[in-house]
Amino acid sequence: MSARVGVFGATGYTGREVVRLLRRHPRARVAFTTGSATGHLAHEAGLDEAAEAYFLAMPHGIAATYASRLREARPDSVVIDLSGDLRLPTVESYRRWYGQEHKAPHLIGKAVFGLCEAYRERLAGARLVSNPGCYATSVLLPLIPLLREGLVDPADLVADAKSGATGAGRTLREDLLFCELAEDFSAYSPGRTHRHVGEIEAALADRTGRTVELTFCPHLLPVKRGILTALYVKPKVDVAELRGALKRAYDGTAFVHVVDGAPPRLSDVVETNDCRISVHAGAPGHAVVFSALDNLVKGAAGQAIQNLNLAMGWPETDGLVSAFPPPPGGTGAAS
Amino acid sequence: MSARVGVFGATGYTGREVVRLLRRHPRARVAFTTGSATGHLAHEAGLDEAAEAYFLAMPHGIAATYASRLREARPDSVVIDLSGDLRLPTVESYRRWYGQEHKAPHLIGKAVFGLCEAYRERLAGARLVSNPGCYATSVLLPLIPLLREGLVDPADLVADAKSGATGAGRTLREDLLFCELAEDFSAYSPGRTHRHVGEIEAALADRTGRTVELTFCPHLLPVKRGILTALYVKPKVDVAELRGALKRAYDGTAFVHVVDGAPPRLSDVVETNDCRISVHAGAPGHAVVFSALDNLVKGAAGQAIQNLNLAMGWPETDGLVSAFPPPPGGTGAAS
Amino acid sequence: MSARVGVFGATGYTGREVVRLLRRHPRARVAFTTGSATGHLAHEAGLDEAAEAYFLAMPHGIAATYASRLREARPDSVVIDLSGDLRLPTVESYRRWYGQEHKAPHLIGKAVFGLCEAYRERLAGARLVSNPGCYATSVLLPLIPLLREGLVDPADLVADAKSGATGAGRTLREDLLFCELAEDFSAYSPGRTHRHVGEIEAALADRTGRTVELTFCPHLLPVKRGILTALYVKPKVDVAELRGALKRAYDGTAFVHVVDGAPPRLSDVVETNDCRISVHAGAPGHAVVFSALDNLVKGAAGQAIQNLNLAMGWPETDGLVSAFPPPPGGTGAAS
Amino acid sequence: MSARVGVFGATGYTGREVVRLLRRHPRARVAFTTGSATGHLAHEAGLDEAAEAYFLAMPHGIAATYASRLREARPDSVVIDLSGDLRLPTVESYRRWYGQEHKAPHLIGKAVFGLCEAYRERLAGARLVSNPGCYATSVLLPLIPLLREGLVDPADLVADAKSGATGAGRTLREDLLFCELAEDFSAYSPGRTHRHVGEIEAALADRTGRTVELTFCPHLLPVKRGILTALYVKPKVDVAELRGALKRAYDGTAFVHVVDGAPPRLSDVVETNDCRISVHAGAPGHAVVFSALDNLVKGAAGQAIQNLNLAMGWPETDGLVSAFPPPPGGTGAAS
Repeated sequence: MSARVGVFGATGYTGREVVRLLRRHPRARVAFTTGSATGHLAHEAGLDEAAEAYFLAMPHGIAATYASRLREARPDSVVIDLSGDLRLPTVESYRRWYGQEHKAPHLIGKAVFGLCEAYRERLAGARLVSNPGCYATSVLLPLIPLLREGLVDPADLVADAKSGATGAGRTLREDLLFCELAEDFSAYSPGRTHRHVGEIEAALADRTGRTVELTFCPHLLPVKRGILTALYVKPKVDVAELRGALKRAYDGTAFVHVVDGAPPRLSDVVETNDCRISVHAGAPGHAVVFSALDNLVKGAAGQAIQNLNLAMGWPETDGLVSAFPPPPGGTGAAS
Repeated sequence: MSARVGVFGATGYTGREVVRLLRRHPRARVAFTTGSATGHLAHEAGLDEAAEAYFLAMPHGIAATYASRLREARPDSVVIDLSGDLRLPTVESYRRWYGQEHKAPHLIGKAVFGLCEAYRERLAGARLVSNPGCYATSVLLPLIPLLREGLVDPADLVADAKSGATGAGRTLREDLLFCELAEDFSAYSPGRTHRHVGEIEAALADRTGRTVELTFCPHLLPVKRGILTALYVKPKVDVAELRGALKRAYDGTAFVHVVDGAPPRLSDVVETNDCRISVHAGAPGHAVVFSALDNLVKGAAGQAIQNLNLAMGWPETDGLVSAFPPPPGGTGAAS
Repeated sequence: MSARVGVFGATGYTGREVVRLLRRHPRARVAFTTGSATGHLAHEAGLDEAAEAYFLAMPHGIAATYASRLREARPDSVVIDLSGDLRLPTVESYRRWYGQEHKAPHLIGKAVFGLCEAYRERLAGARLVSNPGCYATSVLLPLIPLLREGLVDPADLVADAKSGATGAGRTLREDLLFCELAEDFSAYSPGRTHRHVGEIEAALADRTGRTVELTFCPHLLPVKRGILTALYVKPKVDVAELRGALKRAYDGTAFVHVVDGAPPRLSDVVETNDCRISVHAGAPGHAVVFSALDNLVKGAAGQAIQNLNLAMGWPETDGLVSAFPPPPGGTGAAS
Repeated sequence: MSARVGVFGATGYTGREVVRLLRRHPRARVAFTTGSATGHLAHEAGLDEAAEAYFLAMPHGIAATYASRLREARPDSVVIDLSGDLRLPTVESYRRWYGQEHKAPHLIGKAVFGLCEAYRERLAGARLVSNPGCYATSVLLPLIPLLREGLVDPADLVADAKSGATGAGRTLREDLLFCELAEDFSAYSPGRTHRHVGEIEAALADRTGRTVELTFCPHLLPVKRGILTALYVKPKVDVAELRGALKRAYDGTAFVHVVDGAPPRLSDVVETNDCRISVHAGAPGHAVVFSALDNLVKGAAGQAIQNLNLAMGWPETDGLVSAFPPPPGGTGAAS
């Protein structure tokens, strides 16, 4: 018998991907979805529907309210929030990064941060999970082990990240029109102004005990899916040791793979739940660490399913795809 | 009366752009072009043609041979080499970065490095010009003034660069096929392995007196034209002073523009000879400097024309387009 | 001394292209532009500005009102309407194809239809010009000569047209988002429902004396610019004669070129005012005629400038670019 | 226990897709693959490998030779040829359309034409299957029922087809480079010169008893996958009857779906084995029929798997995906 799952916000790119993945899931069944014509919410109905798990793929601000009502009405259910509402540790940091008051401050600190590989022990049996941001996932997976083991200088951390346009959501913004974005490329929120900086630093503090300040520059790629992040670090050991530490950290995981050779590319990971990482020497005293993932899968819906699996005690890979190790001849870029 | 100009290698993307720009030039006339079916050179003929100026848009290795023969046969003419053959200061550095022996070692050190804004005084009347690489131009224009004035730490220089696919040339490589590149994005030659690192460091040494080692990661964008580079630096002054220094350095230049506000994007500069630069704060002690240019124009053919103008004593902007300042309503991304 | 020109609606793709082309025009000077934040019009101001010519790059419905007020306030000026408001011969046909009442019925029949090559004699000295639709231009240029000379069966006319996304305007529609349009392709308004069918049939009747009913299927391409139309006809003569008739019809024109060999492609004509046409045999009794143009240039802003030139008695090619005949080595697809 | 399957030519786009689909197949197991570095074949090995079924995803000319050797060495196995070698009924027609002598003329007429829905009765138990071309599939699925029932004029058949670039194969051709194809669009082999015309007319003759001559114009889209074909026909009944006939013809099939409303788009069918068809009125006496499919799936590898299923007596849908009927909210274009 399969568990009933409800998806709030199933018309956005993230929500739609949650539904798409759930359809292949051997133990979950989509009980209901709510959605919105662009700009017109029609989510309410779902709050009355009984389910074993709920995904909130809604805008921040709204998601917290729904999480609160579901915690109250269905305390035994698993609620997985894909918005940014429950990622930050305090109402002050939420106010700083989101520029508004939190709608459900009593939930702050109650959700497990759903970066599966870093919080696996707390995710087993969790009832409220805050799914990490896509950029945050791409930065944290390589950075947590390196910082935790003290292998890189915590005062010198730079992340240059590039994301496909689904990361901006299914939003009627002029800069997201085909004729604006095709053949263009740009940086935005440069330096230290993007919201994900807050959750990255919070998770680094929590998992490594280090208070760091990250320089972070996201960019918008003229592609639909995928994030490639370059982390520029100053290692205290050589590149082989950096790579070795990351390999040990993710040895045996289903979805995080540290590769030798050329840096991972978007086509290696798109439509999979994988994150691929590589390590390379820079100028003396410098190294660069690449991470690649699909912003809608490991960066959102896939990791949310992985969190569902962990929370329910199901096999972690249920309903999820890995392309690692690649088959002979490669996974191919044409798909 | 217009000057006769010959273009060797007019069938590649760069050579074709040289021809396209020369057609609009008020004082130059294309006297002849040579080209090649892909992989089959048929350049020889042009060596007998009399002209006041020659552009070499040929592969490295071949270009040096032609430069040598033209210097001998037409000593009064202006020869502008768009390959990498004459960019490095010694045969040893050429061997290191290009992995082969130099074909015309007697020309090493004879060419002026054609980064117009940095070498303007030496370009007036020059007879042999080595046109800089596209990535090198995008890194050097912002970095030279900052290093020369001692405003950033020379031990901590990172450049994360992204280029359109014309930068790889009109080459039959599988990774350049539409079905491989569309919807993909990747880094290559990461860390300190790309050839442009050599010419960047040589020009920095020459113009700033600093010996630096750059961490440099180029990426291949699924667009045709444009380079956006993010430079991560550790400034000794605040961001306003960094920006001010760059503004002073390029005040009054026709093509290099330091902008306030959002980082420049590819569509701001594509099909122009402009380079736009912006400066932003990072984490404490860090800053990020963006530069954007069209790899085929300011990064290659346009700068070559600008060098021709300087060498011939013509107005520097002849035949070249700037989109700065932008017209009300913007230059628009649809073109 | 240059003529002052005003552009209403200069923030849309078409209006922006008008401004871009006027900036290169040797005899025209942009006196003012009006524009709109998306969805919020702020055009009124321009009505008080004196100019020798006005371009209306506004939505249909609105444009007619402005044309009417300008005709009254500035009867000696040239008004060129790029909307569909003045293309149809009667209020009834306007109601049928646009589903609304005409805002300035007294102007119906007063404007010259600005298909330059077909209406050149009436455009000299014209004071009110209705610029044709982009699809209409791509269908009419090949079809008028063939129908006028009775070379194809008027009962059997099919046009399968494909347009870049700027043809849909700078509009916040979900189907125009990058993530919806990239890697997709679709037909819309199939058969006989697109508005341009009305103006095509009206112009065919006017110029050839034939009442025809066209089967017309437009498609949306994942590119920014360009239209390629395939016309399927049943010729009464052989293909060589069809081609010959078209060559004679456009012999000596600056912008309409009938080519031998392979069908024209978008990259042949994009960013030029050219329309290229080719003719090919189909099954016995059938032929196919291709026409290619840039929807924003010959299909809109370029033809509007050409109309300005004709109306003002200036050289027809002023401010306009042709890529025909192509230079040796081709115009190249990378630009 | 699963059947062993060998794939010859697994490095091209089609062969790679065969392997990708087989990996999900519940009853088949990839026993071996052979491939080639681009242009260098290394297929021989596979001929010694025992398997229950073989796919030939090799260039025409080569495939026939392999088919012949496999028929001899493994007479009980199923051989599915995805090349064009076995699609035509005579050596003469092969010579005409392929411009070379057939390599295994004794196999002409021995293979079942693998258009599953039209040849289902002959595919059960077949040992040699010739998989149809991608364009041919998109034309034949709508056209066979209409011609067979005499609903359209057989003398007036036009197909205007547009394909993604994987249709041209993983070939090092300059026109397939990203910088040539992006932002471009073109027709090729217009009128009646493309090879698929031969197999289309042969299959129409075989299944409908009609000898027809098709006007066919293929186009190359700047997308990776998908074909959208517009068929222009002259029906003898009204559009509702045409649509009804197609619905009856494909009622109950798993993968061919006749839809009401807007024409199908590439994103409806990409990465599925579906073909979607719609019917629309044109000018009086004309109609247009659209068909959309994924050229690599229903147009190649998917249909090949479907043929394997039919030949082996397995469930027809094993290992194949349909997106019909679409889930509430749509299948979405972002994937």
